[in-house]
Amino acid sequence: MKFNGRNVFISPSAKIGKNVKIGDNCTIYDNVEIGDDTVVCNDCVVGEPLKAYYSDPAYKNPPTLVGANSIIRSHSIIYAACTMGAGFSTGHRVTIRENTNIGESCSVGTLSDLQGNVKMGKYCRLHSNVHLAQGSTIGDFVFLYPYVVMTNDPYPPSTDIRGGFIGSYTQVGVHAIILPGIKVGENCLIGANTVVSKRVPDFSLATGDPVKVIMDVRQYVAMGKGNPYPWMKRFDRGMPWQGIGYEAWMQQQTVKPAP
Amino acid sequence: MKFNGRNVFISPSAKIGKNVKIGDNCTIYDNVEIGDDTVVCNDCVVGEPLKAYYSDPAYKNPPTLVGANSIIRSHSIIYAACTMGAGFSTGHRVTIRENTNIGESCSVGTLSDLQGNVKMGKYCRLHSNVHLAQGSTIGDFVFLYPYVVMTNDPYPPSTDIRGGFIGSYTQVGVHAIILPGIKVGENCLIGANTVVSKRVPDFSLATGDPVKVIMDVRQYVAMGKGNPYPWMKRFDRGMPWQGIGYEAWMQQQTVKPAP
Amino acid sequence: MKFNGRNVFISPSAKIGKNVKIGDNCTIYDNVEIGDDTVVCNDCVVGEPLKAYYSDPAYKNPPTLVGANSIIRSHSIIYAACTMGAGFSTGHRVTIRENTNIGESCSVGTLSDLQGNVKMGKYCRLHSNVHLAQGSTIGDFVFLYPYVVMTNDPYPPSTDIRGGFIGSYTQVGVHAIILPGIKVGENCLIGANTVVSKRVPDFSLATGDPVKVIMDVRQYVAMGKGNPYPWMKRFDRGMPWQGIGYEAWMQQQTVKPAP
Repeated sequence: MKFNGRNVFISPSAKIGKNVKIGDNCTIYDNVEIGDDTVVCNDCVVGEPLKAYYSDPAYKNPPTLVGANSIIRSHSIIYAACTMGAGFSTGHRVTIRENTNIGESCSVGTLSDLQGNVKMGKYCRLHSNVHLAQGSTIGDFVFLYPYVVMTNDPYPPSTDIRGGFIGSYTQVGVHAIILPGIKVGENCLIGANTVVSKRVPDFSLATGDPVKVIMDVRQYVAMGKGNPYPWMKRFDRGMPWQGIGYEAWMQQQTVKPAP
Repeated sequence: MKFNGRNVFISPSAKIGKNVKIGDNCTIYDNVEIGDDTVVCNDCVVGEPLKAYYSDPAYKNPPTLVGANSIIRSHSIIYAACTMGAGFSTGHRVTIRENTNIGESCSVGTLSDLQGNVKMGKYCRLHSNVHLAQGSTIGDFVFLYPYVVMTNDPYPPSTDIRGGFIGSYTQVGVHAIILPGIKVGENCLIGANTVVSKRVPDFSLATGDPVKVIMDVRQYVAMGKGNPYPWMKRFDRGMPWQGIGYEAWMQQQTVKPAP
Repeated sequence: MKFNGRNVFISPSAKIGKNVKIGDNCTIYDNVEIGDDTVVCNDCVVGEPLKAYYSDPAYKNPPTLVGANSIIRSHSIIYAACTMGAGFSTGHRVTIRENTNIGESCSVGTLSDLQGNVKMGKYCRLHSNVHLAQGSTIGDFVFLYPYVVMTNDPYPPSTDIRGGFIGSYTQVGVHAIILPGIKVGENCLIGANTVVSKRVPDFSLATGDPVKVIMDVRQYVAMGKGNPYPWMKRFDRGMPWQGIGYEAWMQQQTVKPAP
């Protein structure tokens, strides 16, 4: 019932890979490239034109790339001038604005709102309703939970955009806020409802408004679970170390080629 | 102007009741049943297929039931394998994922996001933008206000899903968070922005981050209003005791049949 | 590629100005008036009928006005009985319910949800995902950042609607909550995650849960920036004093006509 070509518009300049499925009511704009085996569900927009489209008769849509083996769920809008690596997936009603670059195997949850000029590494998971201001930067293997907000305006309103930064492997709990230009280190666990108002060092368990570092996250003991952090030693679903373990995978990464 | 059959797709296997209206641009998937006198507004999806649909050629859509006298507002998405009781209503752009069971006369507000495997009793009201993680359970006559989040992961990321629980008659204020596996009792009032990090007993007025029980909610005095809780004695709009009062209605519920 | 008239429905009673563009899959209901040079992007609804439409055969759609030079981005829903002044703009997936009056040159961000009976002055900026309860009132030149919520129910659930009030020039940070009936003064700066539980006087820098006034915002010193508030002396993008400065503009406003 999906993918019957009802009310679909695909630009002649779009490059659609092999075995790509495009849902009903979709619009694929100029200069979009979609990799092989990707699914674009119903009612999606890929390559949404930038604002100049409405006023500049000579407007040309910048190129947009959705990697292979991706799934874009229904009612999502991806602007032009974005790049999403292979294995990308979204929930429903996602908005990704221009000049966003997302590495391989990331997911962006239902209703999330990436405001543009966002950089995200690989294997990140944004759950539902995450808001990333312009200029936000996220490392690899970062998980952001619902209603996390990264901000960028140090004394609103201003034109002084200072995006925040979240280091690799860090987990940020629901409703947490990263204030403008703040850097959260690697391997941190940020509690629900935290307001991150100052730099948080690597391996911090931090929470509160304003944020306080409670302990080294490696000291955290969960009832009956020992030390659950760093989490990579106990969680592998969808991660590149799935089935082999993080340490074995890391060793593979650092093996030097024979001379 | 609505309901003129423009760009509508209804599966031949769907069972559509009497006097049902289906809006333009809607898709009703396989094995959906819609009760009499229900309205499905424009741009809705009912019976959205589960993930296996995209990979399993033998996929069969599990049955989905929308009760009679319901209204599903525009741009909402209801997955397959859900049951919504009679008198159900939604705002716009609601997402309800698979294996969600909702009792009679509930409403789910604009932009709310039910992640699946959610159980909700009868006469509940979810206002706008409520997020319920997988495994969440809600009693009867529960009201959740905007941006309330129920979470389920005790040490993220993990595969140890522990949904929260909210007892009947409880009210949860805006931006409140229920941490994983936490039980909120019956007849509670949870303040705005509360982080519910431990069990809250019945009849608690509780607030703060982390949550503290302030008083028995029955002791709470509102200026010029006396003791407004339990709320059932003073509020009846849309409730089954409307016009007769809660106590009279309760007596009806407990009348034993003649021997 | 936009604006090719695919799957568009425009009521014969709608009045469409000169040089208006209407995107694909749009519905413009009865008694909508759209001013000159306005753009309505794809998949929008303007003049969404009120609830009585579904039950009253004699229902007539009340008039709806979108001012000239506006841009309504895709998937937005504007109910009937609303008035938006000239130069209005929205993000994607905005919901604006009935009896909302918005002054000139305002913007409402992606996913924002105005619940109806909202009054907003001129040159206001609502960023993404702002929620305004019924009865909310906002002055001129007010900026609300993501996930700000204005509430209206003093002892939920009740039928005693008491909308909040935000004075002109005030800035409200992300995830802040205005409790029912509370008045925030003019020229305030409300911090992220604040719960505004009592009246805040003009020119306050206020933050916390519950809110505390920290200082007169005019005393606030930003590193290397002096006193950034009131902000009108240093920020003019899109404001009526752009290019001439706030003080010169204010003098123009107060010049009395020659006798």
